[in-house]
Amino acid sequence: MSLFGPLLHAWVKLRIALLRGEGLTVADDCRFHGVPAFGSEPYLITIGKHVAIAANVTFITHDGGTHVFREQERYKDVIKYGRIKVLDNCVLGYGATILPGVTIGPNSVVGAGAVVTRSVPPNVLAAGNPAKPVMTINQYAEWSLASTPSYDVQEYLTDKRSVLEKITVKGAARAEPK
Amino acid sequence: MSLFGPLLHAWVKLRIALLRGEGLTVADDCRFHGVPAFGSEPYLITIGKHVAIAANVTFITHDGGTHVFREQERYKDVIKYGRIKVLDNCVLGYGATILPGVTIGPNSVVGAGAVVTRSVPPNVLAAGNPAKPVMTINQYAEWSLASTPSYDVQEYLTDKRSVLEKITVKGAARAEPK
Amino acid sequence: MSLFGPLLHAWVKLRIALLRGEGLTVADDCRFHGVPAFGSEPYLITIGKHVAIAANVTFITHDGGTHVFREQERYKDVIKYGRIKVLDNCVLGYGATILPGVTIGPNSVVGAGAVVTRSVPPNVLAAGNPAKPVMTINQYAEWSLASTPSYDVQEYLTDKRSVLEKITVKGAARAEPK
Repeated sequence: MSLFGPLLHAWVKLRIALLRGEGLTVADDCRFHGVPAFGSEPYLITIGKHVAIAANVTFITHDGGTHVFREQERYKDVIKYGRIKVLDNCVLGYGATILPGVTIGPNSVVGAGAVVTRSVPPNVLAAGNPAKPVMTINQYAEWSLASTPSYDVQEYLTDKRSVLEKITVKGAARAEPK
Repeated sequence: MSLFGPLLHAWVKLRIALLRGEGLTVADDCRFHGVPAFGSEPYLITIGKHVAIAANVTFITHDGGTHVFREQERYKDVIKYGRIKVLDNCVLGYGATILPGVTIGPNSVVGAGAVVTRSVPPNVLAAGNPAKPVMTINQYAEWSLASTPSYDVQEYLTDKRSVLEKITVKGAARAEPK
Repeated sequence: MSLFGPLLHAWVKLRIALLRGEGLTVADDCRFHGVPAFGSEPYLITIGKHVAIAANVTFITHDGGTHVFREQERYKDVIKYGRIKVLDNCVLGYGATILPGVTIGPNSVVGAGAVVTRSVPPNVLAAGNPAKPVMTINQYAEWSLASTPSYDVQEYLTDKRSVLEKITVKGAARAEPK
């Protein structure tokens, strides 16, 4: 990890810079864990401020399903592209797929593995395939607070593993608030 | 992209040729965006004419879940393989996973990220996990036509980006016809 | 395949050994088809005996969605990690994603492409996104037995392809028992 981390970070920075050259709009303070797949039209994608994007996220701005009917005369000029907008202060979870025409947030979370076929309203956690709102961000924050165990914040900053192995982790998975 | 495109294309052609050597049946006019994962029994997979397959598609012809019971005497000879048939004029969306025993189409579309556990009938768009029919191809085509903006077809062929940035893209995501 | 198989096997062994050094607990008799993504806290993951894990499986022990609210004073010390326990004799299917706080099994199967947000009880097959129990392992075993065609077990061991191409494969996909 010691070498891999900085190399990955440099690779992500380079790729994002190149994608900006192809028209991707993305705020400077976004956090990327790996480089998302931005597809063939990155200039249709806008990512707002303070957005965090986990690894293996895919943006799809072109619906290639038109292949199935495009040879019929009636449909020969049909094209199907859609802008994707991730508004400020959102999180896209590991492996999420965002389809054309979708707007997310602001202040919303897309769960790991979600396939987002419709816009995600502000201030919600959405998950599943197809993705649906599961709870509000306020519920999500309160649940997360309630499930956070007592721990030594200073120790966590210096020795995360030791803290995490010691505490009884009460937190369950995302879609299971108690 | 200028170099990457042709290299990817050559790589896909080579891999598909090798897979045919291992028994994969696939028509000459299929379009592959990347090489699907065909698993350990490509000879159980048949792909018809004019099929388009997006990147990161996975075909699974063997159900390895039998591992959980196969050591019981009653089940010791159980095997679980299934042919996969993608019939003519289908589209498999980005990241779709097709499970053993499934037949798709003809003239059907599998949405991005779908996990296809049951056969997909002819002339439908199926999506989700597990995948279910969402609409007919006729509805899909009409919806796509209705959401196609006015654009200059000649300009689109020569400068796609300029056209796409100019037009108001009305099209929403797949599962959200209006 | 002749060279690729042993190389992959050696790579998997090496990576698992390194992950044990980072605190992953995993029994010696587990079978890995590729190296799962174990995330940044492998020491929170325990994998029991006789577990089989397909390719492209992801374990997520940290819920990064807290990014969306963590800058509010009330939530500034919230952390959200969860142990993942895969108990004895389980199978995790291709591309499955396991979220923090989840316990699976014993004797359970997670279907391909499943996103597991809640614990999976013992002796069930769970699938979908979010994953839900689909049937008991006993139903799954009986269905698998009923769908196994007559075949020559000795021939299968020496020439799998010949057997699989010959038999009428009755088996359908996982979620479709008959």
